[in-house]
Formats: sequence, structure tokens, C-alpha cells
Amino acid sequence: MGKTISVYRKGHFNAAHRLYVRDWEFERNKEVFGLCNNPYYHGHNYEIEVCISGSIDPVTGMLINLDYLKRIIKEEIEDYFDHKNLNEQVEEFKTLNPTVENICIVSYERLRKKLDPKYRLRVRLYETARNYAEYGE
Amino acid sequence: MGKTISVYRKGHFNAAHRLYVRDWEFERNKEVFGLCNNPYYHGHNYEIEVCISGSIDPVTGMLINLDYLKRIIKEEIEDYFDHKNLNEQVEEFKTLNPTVENICIVSYERLRKKLDPKYRLRVRLYETARNYAEYGE
Amino acid sequence: MGKTISVYRKGHFNAAHRLYVRDWEFERNKEVFGLCNNPYYHGHNYEIEVCISGSIDPVTGMLINLDYLKRIIKEEIEDYFDHKNLNEQVEEFKTLNPTVENICIVSYERLRKKLDPKYRLRVRLYETARNYAEYGE
Amino acid sequence: MGKTISVYRKGHFNAAHRLYVRDWEFERNKEVFGLCNNPYYHGHNYEIEVCISGSIDPVTGMLINLDYLKRIIKEEIEDYFDHKNLNEQVEEFKTLNPTVENICIVSYERLRKKLDPKYRLRVRLYETARNYAEYGE
Amino acid sequence: MGKTISVYRKGHFNAAHRLYVRDWEFERNKEVFGLCNNPYYHGHNYEIEVCISGSIDPVTGMLINLDYLKRIIKEEIEDYFDHKNLNEQVEEFKTLNPTVENICIVSYERLRKKLDPKYRLRVRLYETARNYAEYGE
Amino acid sequence: MGKTISVYRKGHFNAAHRLYVRDWEFERNKEVFGLCNNPYYHGHNYEIEVCISGSIDPVTGMLINLDYLKRIIKEEIEDYFDHKNLNEQVEEFKTLNPTVENICIVSYERLRKKLDPKYRLRVRLYETARNYAEYGE
Repeated sequence: MGKTISVYRKGHFNAAHRLYVRDWEFERNKEVFGLCNNPYYHGHNYEIEVCISGSIDPVTGMLINLDYLKRIIKEEIEDYFDHKNLNEQVEEFKTLNPTVENICIVSYERLRKKLDPKYRLRVRLYETARNYAEYGE
Repeated sequence: MGKTISVYRKGHFNAAHRLYVRDWEFERNKEVFGLCNNPYYHGHNYEIEVCISGSIDPVTGMLINLDYLKRIIKEEIEDYFDHKNLNEQVEEFKTLNPTVENICIVSYERLRKKLDPKYRLRVRLYETARNYAEYGE
Repeated sequence: MGKTISVYRKGHFNAAHRLYVRDWEFERNKEVFGLCNNPYYHGHNYEIEVCISGSIDPVTGMLINLDYLKRIIKEEIEDYFDHKNLNEQVEEFKTLNPTVENICIVSYERLRKKLDPKYRLRVRLYETARNYAEYGE
Repeated sequence: MGKTISVYRKGHFNAAHRLYVRDWEFERNKEVFGLCNNPYYHGHNYEIEVCISGSIDPVTGMLINLDYLKRIIKEEIEDYFDHKNLNEQVEEFKTLNPTVENICIVSYERLRKKLDPKYRLRVRLYETARNYAEYGE
Repeated sequence: MGKTISVYRKGHFNAAHRLYVRDWEFERNKEVFGLCNNPYYHGHNYEIEVCISGSIDPVTGMLINLDYLKRIIKEEIEDYFDHKNLNEQVEEFKTLNPTVENICIVSYERLRKKLDPKYRLRVRLYETARNYAEYGE
Repeated sequence: MGKTISVYRKGHFNAAHRLYVRDWEFERNKEVFGLCNNPYYHGHNYEIEVCISGSIDPVTGMLINLDYLKRIIKEEIEDYFDHKNLNEQVEEFKTLNPTVENICIVSYERLRKKLDPKYRLRVRLYETARNYAEYGE
């Protein structure tokens, strides 16, 4: 069994959203998305956990510089989503339903393009302490 | 020093809000409320902690029936605020800014009227894990 | 490396149990199970974390309807185990020692039969914040 | 306004209990205590928070030696309640209903007799993360 | 009973310290402070909770601007203590033992001088999740 | 898909450390390790999560005796690291930078040699609630 090393770093942001399919009638959206379909929006304290896997630099003892990781989480996730209305003010969700699954995938894509391909990336996104999604390699 | 006994019960709800003073210009609101003034709203996972003080019934060993307390928290707070836009869909905030202080006071008022005056009531409201308010006797 | 998406949902229940092997003498049970062998029972606040993996519906942006997942966790786990004596009142533990490992496996089996086989399922069961088990595909 | 200094120390134990009044019929107990009246018992991971107030020793900078506080919490609370059936195996609850309020008061009394009267004592007892009691001067 | 309103804000820092009385022999320090007397230092993730009480501005619905509170916690506490050796690099602890009680009092004093006297201030300082102090009016 | 069963157990310790490469100039260390390069040390409350995978004993219903696991975590990790200066007082870090990655790997190695090779081992090490590493098979 090969061994793997990973590092994790957390971030957080607060945002509003509404879950619905634009092409569906209100009643069908209500049936599928329940209270989350409220047209006036509701919101969450989102928590993101970023996991990077790879190999350690034998000199520094680091897999990735955690200050760099902290910085790209701030720029790509926190500054981008914080205190926003996801449906109305975030490009990716103009055509995509901001479910916890899709916010997780969008977060992954935004971080992936800033990271050296030598790293494996997984992203976990908490919508509440009881509800979350995970995506990655 | 007299001794006091209290019981606590927690509840939670998710909601959207915007902080601003209706009579102020956008720039002044932005200066005072920062990102929280976003006209498209943002949101939080709110957590409420209700504290009741009084004296114990010597037969049952209870200060208040926790099932009753759980029920009024559900009816007066959770069902009333959950998945709502506080500014647009909650009567009390049509004329009151939904700051964490005011949501805490409104929660206190809603619970107070359901409780026997013999109980002392305090309410703590968490907007995030780092930001909260407390109100009561 | 293929990518995977998962969603998680938590539930909880409070129960009593005793750890012992029916065929063993009291002394041998005490040696192996320590305080957990108390014949008068002790108990825990159990926390369950259910992880479903699969693929996203491109229209709804959902892997599984979280309301459905919440409902089967309520019916199969919370209503079934909550406020019970696991050894005396739960069918599966009449012949099985209710260790954290076995409660985790039994929870998995109960949820597995309610879920479409297209989903991968993993279950994590917390006996305390320091002690837990995980089981699944 | 005078200033006060307090120190806090946490402990924990796991126990089983049943809530009921011995002199009442089963039906009346069920009505008042609900699921908690299960005659086969259920259980919890209890968490205790002990708060001591007083004045600081100017030489050591300590209000009370936290190692001593840790030791009396271990002896009077953890070793005494852990992995026990409160109704059947704890002297104080042979005649007292082990509600969260009463467990809190009994814990206070056990600690109070080990502490110098110069200290103020308050005890908070968590039955679950959502349900707790506080007692003291 | 008069009613009071308070707001809370949390901050955190990581630091090293050693507990000992300079005038005492090593053996006496070891007896009183145990492992905390290690001359090579050990350390903690400290968490600070700042509580401000007063009255609400009826126009803004705010007791104090939380951005201002966040800023003074950053300047007076986080930037001042973070990643420091408290005994060697913090002025106040050159002559004061950095117990959790004294770090709490020093934090209070640093914040008090930045706050309008109309506010009541209390500070809670967590050394670990099980060990903390509280100081204030 | 084969099924796997794992058990987890947590432990914790408080320690001081400094991150730097002995052969580098101060300026280069400061650039790479930032505040963590403070020559007077800083510290953390470390939390360790040990995960063991294998198969269940059908008689006891246990994968591994959790009391044994608790004991080796105490002996190999808690007693060995607690209240220590990692750079100055822990053998393994005399030549190895005590990054969260390296503390995680050293913890794995110390536990691995005490465990039957039939078990799979993974170790997660939390430096703060936002920063952690994971290592294992």
C-alpha cells in the first residue's frame, strides 16, 4: 500500500441563494426544492475545506506553502463569494443552480486553475453543519 | 449569595438579510454597514440559545418542560424566520434594521409573550460562530 | 484521475447500551470491555454522518434530493434508535454486540436497502467526539 | 462597577438514565417525560463546565490551581458518574429524578464541599449540545 | 429587572509560554506549575471572546460597529500576541506570569483603553477548549 | 465494490515549535515561513485523529480494542509531545522541520511500529481548527 500525504486549509463566506430551475413552473420548483425555492432568497454561513495531496519537499518539510494556499482561498473563494447573492451576483450561477454540489464544483474549478497540476485537489463545502458536499480527484 | 438555576435550549434557522437605514444615501449606508449593505442580500445560518431561569418543581425535578420550550422555539423562531428574507418577509423588520442585536431583541419579545412571567428569560443569537448578541433580564 | 462528487447529511440519537459477549463469564467481559460492560447500562449521544456518492443531475444540480436523504435518516436511524436501550429494544442487537463498529454497520444496512443501487454509500458513526467508526463502499 | 475574575474547566462522562416520578402511573410519566421515560433507559455524553470566581494570587497569577480543579472534577464527577446508570447506581438519584437540572445541582453540591468557601462556584451541565442547565451562586 | 443588550466578537492567536515565578527554585515551580514550567516553553491556540454591553442606537440598530470592534481586537490582541513567545516578547509578561488569568486581564486592559467608557466590557480567554478565564465589569 | 470498516480515536497535546531550515539565512527563512520562523518559538493545541482499518472480530464485534488504541496514543503521542518544545526536546525534530506535515508523518511512524501489520493506519494532525495534515496507507 502506497502512502499519501495531504494538507487541509479552511475558509468561510456568507452568501444568499435561491434554488430553482429557471424553465420550471413555480409549483414544480417548490415541490423539488421546498423552502429553498423562496424567491426572496435565504442564506448561509458557508465553510470550505480544501485538501491538497502530493509529496513533501525534503528540505522545507512542506507539501505546499500554506500561506500561498490561504491566499488563493481568499482570492478565489472568500473575496469572490462573500456577502454576495450567488444567483444574481456570481457569474457561474447565472446559468447553474447554486446547490451545495454546484458551489462545491465551482469552487474546485476556481482553485484548480491556480494550482500546479502536480497536486491532487479535493474540496469540501459545508452549507450548514449538517449538510455538505465534496468534489475532486 | 442566592443560588439560581437555569436551563438552556438551542434552535437554528437560515435566512437572508441586508443592513441599511432606509433614509440614508447608499454611500453612507456603505460606509457604516460595509459589505452587509449589499442590496442583493447575503445570508447566515443563525443559531439561537434560549436561557430560562426560575425554580425547580421538587416532584418532577424540572424548571420548565423542555418539550414545551422546544415547541415554542420551533413555532416562534424557527418556523417564523427559517428560509426567509428578513427585510422583505418578516413583519418586525419592515421598519427595523435586522442587525444581530435587533434579531436578538425581536426573538426575545416573541418568546417572552409565550412564557409565564415567573421565568427570567435571556436570548443569545449567533449570526456566525464569531459574531453574536445577547438580550434579556 | 476521475473526479467524484459526494453529499453528506448528519443525524443524531441518544441511546443506552452495554458491551459484552453473552457466552462469556462476567470477568472475561470486564477484562475485554472494561467499564462498557456495566450490566446496568450506560449511554451516549450518537451522531451519524451519511455520505452518498454518484453523479449530478445536470438540470437540478442535485446528486440526491437532500430532503429525501433527511427523511430516510429520520425513519431508518433516528426514529429507530432514539431513546432506546440498544441491547434490549433493537432487533439487530439481540444477537450482535452494539459496539460502535456494529452500530455503524447496522446503520449502513438499514440505509442501503432504501437507496437506489446507483449510489455509493458510506456511514460514519460517532459514539463520542473522540471515538467513531466508518463503514461502506 | 467592580471587576471579577473567573476560571473555567471542563470534564465529561457517559451515563444512562430514565426520567420518571416513582409515585406516578406509567401513562402520566409518559405524558410528562415523553421518550425519556423509557423503562429500559437511554443515555448521553454529558459535559460539565465548572466556573470558579475569586481573586488572583499576585505571586503565582493563579485564581486556583487548575491541576487541583481538574483533580476534584475527576474524583467527584467523572469517576463517580462515568459509565453508570444514574437511577440505579448513583446514591443521590435513588430519590431524585436525574433531570439535567438535578444532575447539575448534585454536581454543584459534590464540588462545593471540596472547595474553599472563599470561591464562588457555578456549574453548567450539557446533556446534549442543544440542552443544558446551569446552577450556582 | 432591567434588560441588557450585549454583542460578542471572537478572535484568536497562537503563542508560546512558560509558567513560573522568577524568584522561586526550579523544584518549587515544578511542584506548582507542573508540565507548564518546561523551561523550553510549550504553546497554545488561544481564542478570545470579547463582550460589549450598552444600549442600541435606535437608527442603526447597532450597539457598537462590529467592524470597529473587529479592528481593535486585531490591533490590540491578535497582531500583538500572535506567533509570539509571551514571556520573552510581550512587554506585560516581563514581570507577570502569563497564566490564562493574567493573559485575560492584560487583554481586558488593552481593549478597555480603546473603548468609550459608556460600554461595559468583559473578556473571555480560552487556553484550550477545556480551560479558560473571564474578566471584566 | 468491497466494503471497509474503520475506527477512529482522537488525542491531543500542547507544544511549542519554530519553522525554519537550519542551513538557510534568517531572511530566507522569514520569507518562506513568515511568523512561524520566530526564533523565540510560538505554539499550538495539537489534535490527533488516528484511523485504523481492518476486519471485525465476529465474536466481540470489535476491529481493535479501543482501550489499547487509546493507550498507545497516550504513550506514543500525548506523553511524548505534550508540553514540549518540538525543536529542542523531541528527538525526531532535531534534524527535521516540525511542520504539520512532518509531525503527522512522525506520529504515523511512532504508531505504526506498535500496531499489528494487519491493520491499515491513517493519521490526521490538526495544528489549528483551520490547518491540518493527513498521512497513511
